[in-house]
Amino acid sequence: MEQEQKLLLQWTTQRQLSIPTILLKHYKEIGLKEDELVALLHVQSFIEQGNGFPTPELLSERMTHTHSDCADMFGRLVRNRFLSLEKKWDEQGILYEYLTLEPLWLKLIQLLKGEEVQAKEQEKHVQEG
Amino acid sequence: MEQEQKLLLQWTTQRQLSIPTILLKHYKEIGLKEDELVALLHVQSFIEQGNGFPTPELLSERMTHTHSDCADMFGRLVRNRFLSLEKKWDEQGILYEYLTLEPLWLKLIQLLKGEEVQAKEQEKHVQEG
Amino acid sequence: MEQEQKLLLQWTTQRQLSIPTILLKHYKEIGLKEDELVALLHVQSFIEQGNGFPTPELLSERMTHTHSDCADMFGRLVRNRFLSLEKKWDEQGILYEYLTLEPLWLKLIQLLKGEEVQAKEQEKHVQEG
Amino acid sequence: MEQEQKLLLQWTTQRQLSIPTILLKHYKEIGLKEDELVALLHVQSFIEQGNGFPTPELLSERMTHTHSDCADMFGRLVRNRFLSLEKKWDEQGILYEYLTLEPLWLKLIQLLKGEEVQAKEQEKHVQEG
Repeated sequence: MEQEQKLLLQWTTQRQLSIPTILLKHYKEIGLKEDELVALLHVQSFIEQGNGFPTPELLSERMTHTHSDCADMFGRLVRNRFLSLEKKWDEQGILYEYLTLEPLWLKLIQLLKGEEVQAKEQEKHVQEG
Repeated sequence: MEQEQKLLLQWTTQRQLSIPTILLKHYKEIGLKEDELVALLHVQSFIEQGNGFPTPELLSERMTHTHSDCADMFGRLVRNRFLSLEKKWDEQGILYEYLTLEPLWLKLIQLLKGEEVQAKEQEKHVQEG
Repeated sequence: MEQEQKLLLQWTTQRQLSIPTILLKHYKEIGLKEDELVALLHVQSFIEQGNGFPTPELLSERMTHTHSDCADMFGRLVRNRFLSLEKKWDEQGILYEYLTLEPLWLKLIQLLKGEEVQAKEQEKHVQEG
Repeated sequence: MEQEQKLLLQWTTQRQLSIPTILLKHYKEIGLKEDELVALLHVQSFIEQGNGFPTPELLSERMTHTHSDCADMFGRLVRNRFLSLEKKWDEQGILYEYLTLEPLWLKLIQLLKGEEVQAKEQEKHVQEG
């Protein structure tokens, strides 16, 4: 197989990471900076590839931040409830830790709820006004 | 319809932006910082929604950067060939400008080609060694 | 630009359609056949490209069904509440019709709710038993 | 956590399957029927979840076809080169089999190449004409 075809196959068989556009539109409002958003996308991508607990080292290989900066960012993301570290027993009875983005999705849902309440109140105001 | 159901529908009917994982893995190697990557994702998202020419103002509404920083970043992304501004005549004969990420994809493809050449040479080296 | 590179660009710049895996796992349970699922994916794809009202003719160009079969299928999907036809006034005051998959998502959500209720009752049963 | 929020989390944390729109537009031209397309999407979805060798049984649980029909379809998809069964040694030296959609992507690429050649010849014809 020639080189170009190999490249085409490498492209066509890669995974795609799907980002909800609601996240892209509102990450700033829930308090995320761009590099934190990208860190969360990396985590999501590792989870989808079956690695539920990517380390700061692994992240720093892909990001323009040092290992130590990635560790700090991880801590901050967990403390500020964008990411959480959960524990589970697997089928062999071994306890393992994994990361989940559930808190991130809950924050976005809370934001959308607040916006909807605001929109309704404005509407009411206009009608009463 | 109750509020929760509205939220669910808002979530289920939103678009998803697909990011090739090759981009996520290699943006650092082609010289992109995290905030530049996010800017390109915003541009891609606007293009997919039918807005082929998002302005720096529009970007700064979503990003944690000022309007002026977004304008600088735009200039840098075009100069460094991650983004290009093209012109086209529409059906009514009106000239319009639009952004395209083609140069970004070409850079990634060049990177993959280089990696493959390197891999082959190493293999050859091992066999000859 | 050579042909291979053009092909690569055609591939890299195409859109991706994101399908929720919940739909892929449960379409059979909510009463969809495979060709109906694909018809809904085509509709979703047209909507995302800005065409909110693809006709049966358009569908039959892409599907292995005749124009008349596609029209029948459309009617069936609307009657069985997988698809609905809505009306809206645009900014120029012109009434236009568009298709939405909201009923499909509501059906899936109802299914998930039912499953959860069942799971809870089983759990209760086990605890009481 | 209340039921609605659980549902929202179930939705937000599910995977999305990305389908190239080039596949959606051209599957008919490369000889696929709708149920075969859906079978390939199921296979892709299983592969992305780490199951590289979904059986006809597994497919028939999700599809409106019987186990035996799914086995036939599998055979047909492999014979007609949409799907191929490959072998690999894993790190423990165990031989395992896995499915890949590479032949599908190659067919699509061949189709796009043919279309481009045709387009060029038509152009030439027009210029000479």
